[in-house]
Amino acid sequence: MAIRKLLVANRGEIAVRIIRAARKLGIATVQVHSRADADMLAVRLADEAVDIGPPSAAKSYLNVAAIVEAAKASGADAIHPGYGFLSENADFAEAVAAANLVFVGPTPDTIRTMGDKAAARAAARAAGVPVVPGSDGIVTVETAPAIAAGIGFPVMVKAAAGGGGRGIRIARDADELAALLPQASAEAQAAFGDGSLYLERFIGRARHVEVQVLGDGRSAIHLGERECSLQRRRQKVWEEAPAPGLPDEARAALCSSAVRLAEACRYSGAGTLEYLYDDATGEFFFIEMNTRIQVEHPVTEMVTGVDLVEEMIRIAGGEPLRHRQADIVTRGHAVEVRINAEDPTRDFRPAPGTVTALALPGGFGVRFDTMLYPGYTVPPFYDSLLGKLIVWDGTREGALARLRAALGELGVDGIATTAGLHAALVRDPDVAAGRFHTRWLEDWLERRPLAPVPQKETAP
Amino acid sequence: MAIRKLLVANRGEIAVRIIRAARKLGIATVQVHSRADADMLAVRLADEAVDIGPPSAAKSYLNVAAIVEAAKASGADAIHPGYGFLSENADFAEAVAAANLVFVGPTPDTIRTMGDKAAARAAARAAGVPVVPGSDGIVTVETAPAIAAGIGFPVMVKAAAGGGGRGIRIARDADELAALLPQASAEAQAAFGDGSLYLERFIGRARHVEVQVLGDGRSAIHLGERECSLQRRRQKVWEEAPAPGLPDEARAALCSSAVRLAEACRYSGAGTLEYLYDDATGEFFFIEMNTRIQVEHPVTEMVTGVDLVEEMIRIAGGEPLRHRQADIVTRGHAVEVRINAEDPTRDFRPAPGTVTALALPGGFGVRFDTMLYPGYTVPPFYDSLLGKLIVWDGTREGALARLRAALGELGVDGIATTAGLHAALVRDPDVAAGRFHTRWLEDWLERRPLAPVPQKETAP
Repeated sequence: MAIRKLLVANRGEIAVRIIRAARKLGIATVQVHSRADADMLAVRLADEAVDIGPPSAAKSYLNVAAIVEAAKASGADAIHPGYGFLSENADFAEAVAAANLVFVGPTPDTIRTMGDKAAARAAARAAGVPVVPGSDGIVTVETAPAIAAGIGFPVMVKAAAGGGGRGIRIARDADELAALLPQASAEAQAAFGDGSLYLERFIGRARHVEVQVLGDGRSAIHLGERECSLQRRRQKVWEEAPAPGLPDEARAALCSSAVRLAEACRYSGAGTLEYLYDDATGEFFFIEMNTRIQVEHPVTEMVTGVDLVEEMIRIAGGEPLRHRQADIVTRGHAVEVRINAEDPTRDFRPAPGTVTALALPGGFGVRFDTMLYPGYTVPPFYDSLLGKLIVWDGTREGALARLRAALGELGVDGIATTAGLHAALVRDPDVAAGRFHTRWLEDWLERRPLAPVPQKETAP
Repeated sequence: MAIRKLLVANRGEIAVRIIRAARKLGIATVQVHSRADADMLAVRLADEAVDIGPPSAAKSYLNVAAIVEAAKASGADAIHPGYGFLSENADFAEAVAAANLVFVGPTPDTIRTMGDKAAARAAARAAGVPVVPGSDGIVTVETAPAIAAGIGFPVMVKAAAGGGGRGIRIARDADELAALLPQASAEAQAAFGDGSLYLERFIGRARHVEVQVLGDGRSAIHLGERECSLQRRRQKVWEEAPAPGLPDEARAALCSSAVRLAEACRYSGAGTLEYLYDDATGEFFFIEMNTRIQVEHPVTEMVTGVDLVEEMIRIAGGEPLRHRQADIVTRGHAVEVRINAEDPTRDFRPAPGTVTALALPGGFGVRFDTMLYPGYTVPPFYDSLLGKLIVWDGTREGALARLRAALGELGVDGIATTAGLHAALVRDPDVAAGRFHTRWLEDWLERRPLAPVPQKETAP
């Protein structure tokens, strides 16, 4: 069914991103918003806007009934969930389908399987995708010690219902494991409503490498990989495509494994398979699949020339994949840095407030995806992402030079941002050499705390 | 000699463009400006700014002595002339060299040869590049009638020192030619200080197709062609790459002819060879070479991934070409539309004034090169170009869809712009089919005058 009116069930920069893709396709847009977001850029850009509740996300962007009702009342025939919020909620996808609306994403079954870490791991193994050596299922206080000994310490104790780095503990030996298990189970029960735990080998110095896939329910293709090792508290802050220093054979094995798993689950839409990659051994291990568009999708768009959000809307509307694998050719190198409303000189304290003046970089090879405009007030209720500065060049060295130049042009007056962190990172020799792993940034931040710097004024 | 500090001898969006390329290369920038331009964006972005004179271009941006003096006083070691103003002035290039500064462009000799239409035509013929059948040299009142009869009427009477569409008359028969010649010579003498004239066959329904080249003084490459037929009063308003509907053999012949001529004149820097292309016969004819960067260069950048301004600065600094011909692969389709401070509903009357609010399109495949910022006052002294909206997509159809969407996002409050013209053009069936020629737009504007529309307000 061709989509004619799309409801955007999200906010911030990704809502703007989705509206732009819909507009290109000639699809009308309905933007839902909490009462705190009536002035957001996506509301201005959309054809219609619907107030779905108070500022609290639980009462607005997580409010399934209000969102489905808004779609029906506005005559929308499809809903795009963006990332976060309800994007990986199988019950939401089911409620959308039950209302005879198109959910822009995979089926509820796929969301449910991939959202269950143990089930996702089993699906990966069945598709011949390497997984981190682990318990292959739920452990109990009784079974865990022998299984952990087989895997080898240190082991990670993970909540089956966790995600985004939440619900993870590390046990260095059998005693620590014994002490951890009841506590971790109780915490998981409290946090996720499910106390089930599983075990995985702890891989100390790995890169986070992920593969972008597109599927139409019949076949799937990959669009290459992304390197996302620069993280703080398991939140990515800097992403690249392609992954620097990845040998061609490893890249080919990684990407073809992702297509195998996507095809095995008859994947429909845009998805990402996340892996740990061990530089030392060349081994890679599937961690999890995100069954939605990701924050860092633009770096893949910049090197492949494929508009991922457009493709996911087309697929949801019933079109088959428009690209064969051989059509996907990567060109050059792209880097994305996340500009957050956080003060990196004050332990990344959130910094909501009003943007009094704004200077955005632009020109050749520069893209800035943002919901900011001069005078916009960043509300304190949601995540801190303000925008994503994405640069492209023929080489990684060129992309870093362009990033340095573009960061020099960026001015967000009135609130603190993480731009200064990136200005320091882009000048770091390890970053220039692509020598990093998932805990590199936290070590780096401990070694060299960022000094508070006076804000440059953009306005005259 | 590696360039360390670059003076930008221009204004507006191209000055911003040059500063961005210099920054990426780690080169410091000096921005000269007239007294009317002290607040322009390039002045804010540059490392240093120098006031070179009163608003009148003749006393500022055309003031050779003041610009060379500003370079010496600021310690700049190179000058980028941009387009227009002194960019194709061989005397300026010589003055720059005489001051031991690097001129970012070809040698004064090349500028002089290509700036003389008859000499450029001779150079093209010598390089085996087809030229429009014509007089092959200056004509007099005595020699013109026989030569015109040999070429065939209608013929164009062109001033040897003219350019940019100025100094051209069309004679439909021998009587008209006899009447025209003395008058055209006197006008050329008054306008250009040189009354010399030459003749060329008038080609009624041609496309304007041009080829981008890069040379390092030893070898040259092409970066494909651009289609620039949509013109009003010989000013381009809409440009594309690649040229729609151009057969592959014609494209190959056109581009290789451009490389031959660039190599024959040992071309150094970025240059453009302009051609007329006759759809009906597949013939193409060299018209002239622009020995500078052109307004429409971004469409070539979008499809090739080559930063032309960066490359011209590198070449001026002594680097050899970084790309072989085989490295240049075009991908997808790009369209640029010029957003001018002109009111298309009032015969394109200039519309300087203050921009009270600004909403710029962005996201995947969208680039907006501009000097605008909220609160900026467009001065009445210079050309009316405010910015260039450039879109890219995998196909021409996709690029037009993206252009429609991006134009819908653009808001420039406070002054009239040509955005409405482009919003109408992008919905025209002939434009969609790529069916146009150099006089198509003027015919179209006569057929369907644009009605004044109330300005959409961008600000809340």
